[in-house]
Amino acid sequence: MKANRPLLLLLLAASLTAQERRPRARDIGITVGSFPPGPLNAITDVPGVRVGQTTIFGGDSINTGITAILPHGGNPFREKVPAAIVVGNGFGKLAGSTQVNELGELESPIVLTCTLCVPRAADAVLTWLLALPGNEDVRSANPVVGETNDGFLNNIRARPITEADVLSAIRSASEGPVAEGAVGAGRGTVAFGWKGGIGTSSRKLPTQFGGWTVGLARTGSSMSNGSGDYVIAFSTVRPRPPSTNLDRLTDTVVIVRNDIMSGLFQATIDATEEAIYNSLLRAETVRGYRGVVRALPVDSTMMILRRHGAIPR
Amino acid sequence: MKANRPLLLLLLAASLTAQERRPRARDIGITVGSFPPGPLNAITDVPGVRVGQTTIFGGDSINTGITAILPHGGNPFREKVPAAIVVGNGFGKLAGSTQVNELGELESPIVLTCTLCVPRAADAVLTWLLALPGNEDVRSANPVVGETNDGFLNNIRARPITEADVLSAIRSASEGPVAEGAVGAGRGTVAFGWKGGIGTSSRKLPTQFGGWTVGLARTGSSMSNGSGDYVIAFSTVRPRPPSTNLDRLTDTVVIVRNDIMSGLFQATIDATEEAIYNSLLRAETVRGYRGVVRALPVDSTMMILRRHGAIPR
Amino acid sequence: MKANRPLLLLLLAASLTAQERRPRARDIGITVGSFPPGPLNAITDVPGVRVGQTTIFGGDSINTGITAILPHGGNPFREKVPAAIVVGNGFGKLAGSTQVNELGELESPIVLTCTLCVPRAADAVLTWLLALPGNEDVRSANPVVGETNDGFLNNIRARPITEADVLSAIRSASEGPVAEGAVGAGRGTVAFGWKGGIGTSSRKLPTQFGGWTVGLARTGSSMSNGSGDYVIAFSTVRPRPPSTNLDRLTDTVVIVRNDIMSGLFQATIDATEEAIYNSLLRAETVRGYRGVVRALPVDSTMMILRRHGAIPR
Amino acid sequence: MKANRPLLLLLLAASLTAQERRPRARDIGITVGSFPPGPLNAITDVPGVRVGQTTIFGGDSINTGITAILPHGGNPFREKVPAAIVVGNGFGKLAGSTQVNELGELESPIVLTCTLCVPRAADAVLTWLLALPGNEDVRSANPVVGETNDGFLNNIRARPITEADVLSAIRSASEGPVAEGAVGAGRGTVAFGWKGGIGTSSRKLPTQFGGWTVGLARTGSSMSNGSGDYVIAFSTVRPRPPSTNLDRLTDTVVIVRNDIMSGLFQATIDATEEAIYNSLLRAETVRGYRGVVRALPVDSTMMILRRHGAIPR
Repeated sequence: MKANRPLLLLLLAASLTAQERRPRARDIGITVGSFPPGPLNAITDVPGVRVGQTTIFGGDSINTGITAILPHGGNPFREKVPAAIVVGNGFGKLAGSTQVNELGELESPIVLTCTLCVPRAADAVLTWLLALPGNEDVRSANPVVGETNDGFLNNIRARPITEADVLSAIRSASEGPVAEGAVGAGRGTVAFGWKGGIGTSSRKLPTQFGGWTVGLARTGSSMSNGSGDYVIAFSTVRPRPPSTNLDRLTDTVVIVRNDIMSGLFQATIDATEEAIYNSLLRAETVRGYRGVVRALPVDSTMMILRRHGAIPR
Repeated sequence: MKANRPLLLLLLAASLTAQERRPRARDIGITVGSFPPGPLNAITDVPGVRVGQTTIFGGDSINTGITAILPHGGNPFREKVPAAIVVGNGFGKLAGSTQVNELGELESPIVLTCTLCVPRAADAVLTWLLALPGNEDVRSANPVVGETNDGFLNNIRARPITEADVLSAIRSASEGPVAEGAVGAGRGTVAFGWKGGIGTSSRKLPTQFGGWTVGLARTGSSMSNGSGDYVIAFSTVRPRPPSTNLDRLTDTVVIVRNDIMSGLFQATIDATEEAIYNSLLRAETVRGYRGVVRALPVDSTMMILRRHGAIPR
Repeated sequence: MKANRPLLLLLLAASLTAQERRPRARDIGITVGSFPPGPLNAITDVPGVRVGQTTIFGGDSINTGITAILPHGGNPFREKVPAAIVVGNGFGKLAGSTQVNELGELESPIVLTCTLCVPRAADAVLTWLLALPGNEDVRSANPVVGETNDGFLNNIRARPITEADVLSAIRSASEGPVAEGAVGAGRGTVAFGWKGGIGTSSRKLPTQFGGWTVGLARTGSSMSNGSGDYVIAFSTVRPRPPSTNLDRLTDTVVIVRNDIMSGLFQATIDATEEAIYNSLLRAETVRGYRGVVRALPVDSTMMILRRHGAIPR
Repeated sequence: MKANRPLLLLLLAASLTAQERRPRARDIGITVGSFPPGPLNAITDVPGVRVGQTTIFGGDSINTGITAILPHGGNPFREKVPAAIVVGNGFGKLAGSTQVNELGELESPIVLTCTLCVPRAADAVLTWLLALPGNEDVRSANPVVGETNDGFLNNIRARPITEADVLSAIRSASEGPVAEGAVGAGRGTVAFGWKGGIGTSSRKLPTQFGGWTVGLARTGSSMSNGSGDYVIAFSTVRPRPPSTNLDRLTDTVVIVRNDIMSGLFQATIDATEEAIYNSLLRAETVRGYRGVVRALPVDSTMMILRRHGAIPR
């Protein structure tokens, strides 16, 4: 039932082969905004950021998974990164938001999984955090886990994830290209009536705007009362790790000045839009619990985009 | 290791006997504010509200538990109640806050447990909710679970609670008197250097202020950066349950007018203060993981209060 | 210097004549979303809502004004309406937000004016409120005043509005069509590099979605760090006015159920988008303090929209 | 009618003589908490902070004023300081909160005045800011103005302050001792049924807790629905002023580490409590619009405190 089991690995491999044939937005001429993407056009263009995913499926009814984003390759509890969470529509099960906003710090991986699986995934993140070298005396930690509702394609009431699945996603996290579409927490999601899933994109600001790289990953969106909408932002610019000296009371941090934030705002908006296009374009048809959700048909989509002049003829 | 297992029930019985000898605040002449309490001076004075607790302890190192508060005796997912959560100090692991505030509704029991146990308790609440008659098609539910940090008396890293412990607390919830002190989620907590725990108090507003009953339960407080501070308020005045008629689009609700809220505010402040006193007075000495935390000495406390004229001589 | 002075009335009349020739979005075939607009396609489709505007201009340097929205024709302090304010980007001078969100009530007109004019406008709103019959004993009132930054076309440092200008906007407020474009608080604003201004649109939900009318008015948007972004929502469904009976402690209110909010959300998004189009299409070229801001050229805009299939050929 | 007019200056002088005889909390043996105060036990113990006040009274009906707090002696728009505003009870007219929280910056003096005078004071703050050398091109500025409701002792509907009164308070701001009691924005306020007013206190943290100085000023508190409750915090640790170099994109700032905040929290709580005591003890009896509000009787208060052991016998 898990992507990381031998038999299903084959299935996943087949699926990945099919998926490889589906394009990303830029492959078919869609560009969003004027800032250029980073080399991978993915959240992993931000140095240090790692993504790991476990895709879980099997039989007619299970289509879910885990997507883990790590801010860096170290111990996130010991080397917390600046972070903030904004709640657009709070109809969601996001764990960890109040502490991130109280302290302005992220101390765990960010994990996405199916709505009813959020507590199990948070518990597994604790298992991972408590076992990290250096965390032997940790008695309080704040896992950040968000939800993707895959209740149409997935038998979500079965909460079909295990601690091992979450640990596998976190441990397999790596720099480099990020799988998109019907993978990880995007395995069972639907967007705009088509199969959605995981998408990512990045922007590299010109030097005069700071030369920063914004990266981001997201799952397909659909606007309704029931559609929780959260933004989690973090920076990989860490203050130097605290010395062991007990009287070390302050951190020295570098912050972006308010008056040059506009470029970062625009880059984030553009990359978000492109990540959604990527999620829709890369996701393949999935058959599941309550029916089939079709992949966005690439050829006719391109035809429509050409007719409207959105991509070159 | 659990209070609801035979061997430990004896221990608990002994413990309860000792506890019975310890007074509540009003027993020794402390009264807070001018509004009178309800008949039980407990959150259960609010009609319909139920409290259930599982106390978990054993050996030298386990002191934790679960306290569950149910807004009424029905299915909380089908009969949601108006609710709001205010974050005082967000350094805490409270699950469920964003959805409660987005929708203004509570659809689960409120469960308290040890910091690192929050995800396991939230998962158990889902188990309970999904299994309730009438919830067969629920694919999204929002458990509200708060933390009490018992990391000094409890080997918190072991996350020593099980799904059965949480279900037991919820299923045993009842109207009537509420156990206070070193019970439930208050088994391992510390307040102001003394043994704290669960405390409760209520206020009955005079008819001219509305005649409402405020009840509330809380765990001992201690002010620091690491001390998460959350307020969860709910009302048991439910809108009539929705008819099955699909075009039923509105609810008719009765709300308290802003300009008479002051009495409710004062009653809440008074009852909170008295609940903290009750938690300190009722809690007995507990020996645990990293040492012993002593019960507040009642006799010398009374002597000091008398000397300062806070209770009658 | 004011639109309501004789000489400039001529100028305004000329300007209105020119403006009359500029189309609204639907006039050139642009429709947003699938819900139909109300009869006026304006915020004033919501029964009771009134809009009044004062446009202030003169010489080379003054281009500003006041736009006032009244929730109903009565005394808003005595018949408060349910309201909420959401802060998107808080870089703005909005007066009154904390009380609206604390009490959930609007007790004043909503007034828009130039950034540095906000305090003067708020003071004038107080003058109007304190003088209303029935408000003789009011000693605290919460004016809601938002800003539009017209610092390019307007000599904003002169704060060129008077109490009389604000009172004129409020007193002239009426039901019926709403002037759009370079009028009121939109006289000096810029959007997307073109002349922006006031725009409005409405949506009428089908009976099965409640049959409600969403109306809304807004000023042109441009995304940057300095672009404050606020949403003020109010409902005209008032609780019955309080009886004089002192023991009247509660209100009975009708609320829309959470699970049918999606239609209202979509209607609001669509109407907002169309209001921005209307503001751009209706606004004419304005010459002012630091230069000229041109009106969006309608013919070439239509050509581009046709080429992209956004409007019928 | 204004304290800074000749005739009334005499009156004020007389009043100050009377006031000088009233003690501060520490003068009669009250100490709050264990951290020591700074040399002045006032907000002005924080290096650079200045306080200026205009007290306005006359006839039977006018008792109001302005209290201005300046974060430093420079141009606050050019040398903004880190700041945040927390809303306890939002039933208040605080101007400027959304921008302070969006940007984390204070760019104006903090001014307190009577509820219905807030817009006039905000307008006067703009006058002051726009006229400062270096601000010639400022076209947007965010005055922070809070309210004190003096509607019992003051004919608040007359809004009896002028631009000159506000400018006088700001321009007279100085380091050194701060007048307390029935002065400035505290001239007409009431607390706990007694005459309240302006109070201030400070704490100096021991070197091992950072050696910082917390200072703060506040007006008397009374808890009710109508009692707005806001906290404005700012730091005088400024980032170095931006170089003129346009490509300067970041600031380097020193921040206090989260895990040593508890001392600062406690110091703030203690100083707030003591500031309230100071405001009550220093305020003298005031006769005004709707009657007389008596000063807290010092002798009998001391007797009660002695009897309860709160101050030494």
